[in-house]
Amino acid sequence: MIKKYRKDGDVSYALGATVVMELMKRRPQDVRAVYISPKSNVVAVIEKAREIGAEIIESEKAFNILSPKENCFAIAEFGKFDAKISGDRHHVVLVNPSNAGNLGTVVRDVAAFDCADLAIIRPAVDPFDPKTVRASMGTVFDINFELFDSFDAYVKRFDNEIVPFMLGGSPFREKSFTAESGAKKYSLVFGNEATGLPQEFERFGAVRIEQSKNVDSLNLSTAVAVGLYKLYTSRSGNTHSVLSTAEHSELA
Amino acid sequence: MIKKYRKDGDVSYALGATVVMELMKRRPQDVRAVYISPKSNVVAVIEKAREIGAEIIESEKAFNILSPKENCFAIAEFGKFDAKISGDRHHVVLVNPSNAGNLGTVVRDVAAFDCADLAIIRPAVDPFDPKTVRASMGTVFDINFELFDSFDAYVKRFDNEIVPFMLGGSPFREKSFTAESGAKKYSLVFGNEATGLPQEFERFGAVRIEQSKNVDSLNLSTAVAVGLYKLYTSRSGNTHSVLSTAEHSELA
Repeated sequence: MIKKYRKDGDVSYALGATVVMELMKRRPQDVRAVYISPKSNVVAVIEKAREIGAEIIESEKAFNILSPKENCFAIAEFGKFDAKISGDRHHVVLVNPSNAGNLGTVVRDVAAFDCADLAIIRPAVDPFDPKTVRASMGTVFDINFELFDSFDAYVKRFDNEIVPFMLGGSPFREKSFTAESGAKKYSLVFGNEATGLPQEFERFGAVRIEQSKNVDSLNLSTAVAVGLYKLYTSRSGNTHSVLSTAEHSELA
Repeated sequence: MIKKYRKDGDVSYALGATVVMELMKRRPQDVRAVYISPKSNVVAVIEKAREIGAEIIESEKAFNILSPKENCFAIAEFGKFDAKISGDRHHVVLVNPSNAGNLGTVVRDVAAFDCADLAIIRPAVDPFDPKTVRASMGTVFDINFELFDSFDAYVKRFDNEIVPFMLGGSPFREKSFTAESGAKKYSLVFGNEATGLPQEFERFGAVRIEQSKNVDSLNLSTAVAVGLYKLYTSRSGNTHSVLSTAEHSELA
């Protein structure tokens, strides 16, 4: 039986046909059930759910419980999974992110510039929150991410160069990455949406994304995107990963 | 009397204390009334509303009509205004944007990298939609923006170099801007969230933001941020616009 999402539970929910499809493609082993709204006829979802052997449930009630106001015609229940981050990759580190939608958008940036794993320092919003899953457009099924109890616990496990993003830092455009494969790995570290990073991070040598004085600061996912884009394009070879226009389906 | 927002009406609404404060600071002349929820005590909003001489209305009803589910304790009604774009500035051009929240986030990017005005090509989501206003965090009161009936109508008025962002374009990292003051002005052009730009834009010489093959494409506001950041930092002098940490209030 479907229930309201619980952070301390062992299942979560993918809301909407697009996200449900991504889940079934990327992590079919974790799908517990797929709910289909009697109002809709989501053919592709039903076909894929049959293919992976997921239970298919036609239910109005699931939608009332999980998505009362939204334009959503498919929900999948899935088991929470481990997707541990790697010592061989760059990292994006979010310290105490507080908004589920923001976290989902950052996940999408991390997936788009596929050169880094995602570390999340507690206290933090839940990466399995259905709002995060939805805002990620299903890319949360595609990346490595891991929660840590403290920044110290994170630092102890990895030997990356720490690059904190802080308003008092030196200009980011002057920062150069030597990011050829096999070389040094970087951790781009971003603070909470409202409070930023604590002063103690200045000891690592902070950088600042240049911006107008008129605006308080950048959207968290904008800051992550600017940082990741530079890291991504500093690698050799990435200019050649051309997408064909046929692959282009969504720019949301 | 407060009413549901209407796209063809001449007023709109700023929802939430932060956005209401920005409105009263930036465009006090357009404020018609400020609604305060009896549930809250928004002292700063009330003080500022008195200062600019706005009508202050305590009303539960306003919140039920405009913001039934949200954590919102202040609403301002304001007259829609003109904020025409300039021929002396770079531009961001959104062709047929369809999502109010996305448009608000792009507005915030445009305000953060304060070097471009915003052109919006119809059909398009409404920049005065309260959802756009809210997602912009009030920066919509700060930038120049203008709607055009077609891209041709836009191009006829401005002599900027057109830079369309398309998946089939050449790598953006190889694009250089010669953007010193007085020199050439650029128009960074982005398509609809679902469909991108029509093929006919290729004649201008399209660019593509390099990204992983695993993800369909970038979030619209992510793409705009990456483009604007490069344009912004290509100008001289911007490395010195350091914000003090005291100015840092929000990274949402």
